[in-house]
Amino acid sequence: MALIVQKYGGSSVADAESIKRVAKRIVETRKSGNDVVVVVSAMGDTTDELLDLASAVTPLASGRELDMLLTAGERISMALLAMAIKSLGQDARSYTGSQAGLVTDAKHGSARIVDVAPKRVREALDAGAIAIVAGFQGFSRITGDITTLGRGGSDTTAVALAAALNADVCEIYTDVDGVFTADPRVVPAAHKIDTVTSEEMLELAAAGAKVLYIRAVEYARRHGVTLHVRSSFNNNEGTLVINPKEGENVEEPLIVGVASDLSEAKVTVVGVPDVPGKAAQIFTIVASTDANIDMIVQNVSTAATGLTDISFTLPKSDGGKVLKALEDAKSDSGFHSLQYDDQIGKLALVGAGMRTNAGVSAKLFTALYEAGINIEMISTSEIRISVVTRADTINDAVRVVHTAFGLDSDEVAQVHGGTGR
Amino acid sequence: MALIVQKYGGSSVADAESIKRVAKRIVETRKSGNDVVVVVSAMGDTTDELLDLASAVTPLASGRELDMLLTAGERISMALLAMAIKSLGQDARSYTGSQAGLVTDAKHGSARIVDVAPKRVREALDAGAIAIVAGFQGFSRITGDITTLGRGGSDTTAVALAAALNADVCEIYTDVDGVFTADPRVVPAAHKIDTVTSEEMLELAAAGAKVLYIRAVEYARRHGVTLHVRSSFNNNEGTLVINPKEGENVEEPLIVGVASDLSEAKVTVVGVPDVPGKAAQIFTIVASTDANIDMIVQNVSTAATGLTDISFTLPKSDGGKVLKALEDAKSDSGFHSLQYDDQIGKLALVGAGMRTNAGVSAKLFTALYEAGINIEMISTSEIRISVVTRADTINDAVRVVHTAFGLDSDEVAQVHGGTGR
Repeated sequence: MALIVQKYGGSSVADAESIKRVAKRIVETRKSGNDVVVVVSAMGDTTDELLDLASAVTPLASGRELDMLLTAGERISMALLAMAIKSLGQDARSYTGSQAGLVTDAKHGSARIVDVAPKRVREALDAGAIAIVAGFQGFSRITGDITTLGRGGSDTTAVALAAALNADVCEIYTDVDGVFTADPRVVPAAHKIDTVTSEEMLELAAAGAKVLYIRAVEYARRHGVTLHVRSSFNNNEGTLVINPKEGENVEEPLIVGVASDLSEAKVTVVGVPDVPGKAAQIFTIVASTDANIDMIVQNVSTAATGLTDISFTLPKSDGGKVLKALEDAKSDSGFHSLQYDDQIGKLALVGAGMRTNAGVSAKLFTALYEAGINIEMISTSEIRISVVTRADTINDAVRVVHTAFGLDSDEVAQVHGGTGR
Repeated sequence: MALIVQKYGGSSVADAESIKRVAKRIVETRKSGNDVVVVVSAMGDTTDELLDLASAVTPLASGRELDMLLTAGERISMALLAMAIKSLGQDARSYTGSQAGLVTDAKHGSARIVDVAPKRVREALDAGAIAIVAGFQGFSRITGDITTLGRGGSDTTAVALAAALNADVCEIYTDVDGVFTADPRVVPAAHKIDTVTSEEMLELAAAGAKVLYIRAVEYARRHGVTLHVRSSFNNNEGTLVINPKEGENVEEPLIVGVASDLSEAKVTVVGVPDVPGKAAQIFTIVASTDANIDMIVQNVSTAATGLTDISFTLPKSDGGKVLKALEDAKSDSGFHSLQYDDQIGKLALVGAGMRTNAGVSAKLFTALYEAGINIEMISTSEIRISVVTRADTINDAVRVVHTAFGLDSDEVAQVHGGTGR
């Protein structure tokens, strides 16, 4: 008898019919002899509708009250789902984040989980019932207030419960069949990955793969939770995200996938005096804005001028505040000027196999060169190579790299839209 | 500095604009130097929409899950109201029923309040904030589950908080100007009552006056809470519902109002053997159905037959089950037959002054007789006289009685629709 945590996103419970369909699937899992804990997001567009209501009342909604408001969303979906399951003859009980013991800090809108004490969930399982838990939400023991976990919060709730309950697997249900070697909308020959390590999954998620949130993958990795990303619209096996133990013999394919991201912009700080401490000074200024810096590249300075250029990428949404902070510090820092380029695309090639294989970079650069695609920045980790190109060449880049590394499948993948909360 | 509890119903917070309007009124009350606790219902039709969702999922919704679902309604309205108040520069904090310490028994859908421990509400007031509390909901300490109080629950929440906080007044905001001498839609000459005792208010509410729920009035009476029923659409004084102390000299008008009710039916048990214990036997059967019996009349038996008829009124919605229970017991009980009449109307004349005035009944019967209206049943309490007439004569009956007791006003009242939760 296994303990399975299942997470269903908003698109899987968008209306009464979807809720009944999901209820049936949950009951089947229970009847196969498993204990089942379900984490559910708010129905379809509920969150957006609640945000619209808040905007209609005030442009400056208090974080505490916004969390109180938004958590009504999961309250509705989880109660309906529990009713649907009960009407199929199986006992089910819904729990809010605080009832399920999801303890967080008090940072409204993006709270961090500090403890998981699922006493009532455990009691429900012991009584033979299916426990339905509201995703995305928790409470602060210090203030006693309701909190939300921010983007991807329901995935994180599911993983945190799976870890605390020592579940056998945490199934993340979505509207695609699993994790793909590339975005099937860009690369029709992309295929579903059967197994991926959490390390690789982290790199894919960080590089723009939307199907799982970095935070949930990190949590799963840290706590050794096995994830199973699969579709709620069929019974196919999805993608297993595993955590091989140190020294464990896992067959690691050279490359698991190619991710791309068009949400970043590039800032270049031009004419930085090439003296010790200048880069530190510049990134201290950037850090003060709380922007998420991704890639950083510093050119070699020419001896003649004693000046260098520093480029970095960051989410476009952070661009304005970073430019302002740097501009304000221009005279102190002594650089010449700033350039801002939001027409870039980022491609990342991920695979633990490249750790022991030297030819990957060369193969990547050759494939792009032969396709006439110019590389503007390069950054590497042990299991990832990222390059920045022009935004309008990124899809071509993904396709040629996907082909070059032998990832193309003969079948054409099913394409669905994605959602996230 | 007074402590005021204000309760706003669903029609007062039906949309973003109404919420902003109500927020302004609350802030004005606070700025006048009062501590303010606000109890709020779900927005407009939210409850009905949630019930529709539940019906779409299953015809047999679990009580526990239905309560979980419905309490999302106040969560939304209270968070929006708190945001609206904060954006006017006044601190406000919203609390669910359980956060506000509304402890109930575990009877889902119609829970009774067993304790009120508004620690967090008190802390909010001490910190200078306005406390917004979800009406209609609480939690059971025994099961740890969320409960709802049933019809009129928000009024009851407000009164219970006012009692626990020892508030100076509990203001019940609605869409009418207060309690009227009769329904202004029936009697255009009806006028607002300035002051009424809770005893009279109980009789009026029991007799069909919709503006306050019996349960909230009972709670207020038992705990000595002064109610102020007033409109959220203007600043007029409404109706004060007071609790005069024993021996206190209150000027009691002869009659405070005339209520009517078309929701009841009359059951007549025909040919009951006139032997001791028969009435007890019949009403034991009726009681076993949990039906709410209102008036009971037993005719004098004729010596010739040794049989009598017993009539009683009850909500039409209880009619079916009572008839069935009596029919099933017919042979045991030995009565001849049952009659069911759902075309009756009930009129009640209420006023503490009639306690010391013998002519009230005579005046009432005369007024009805002169209008050609036949009286079918009569029942009296110390401060009320109720009569049953044909349903289609009830409005005429209310008008002639209203006039006969000098209640007609020269002004014509504003008429609004009413809502209730």
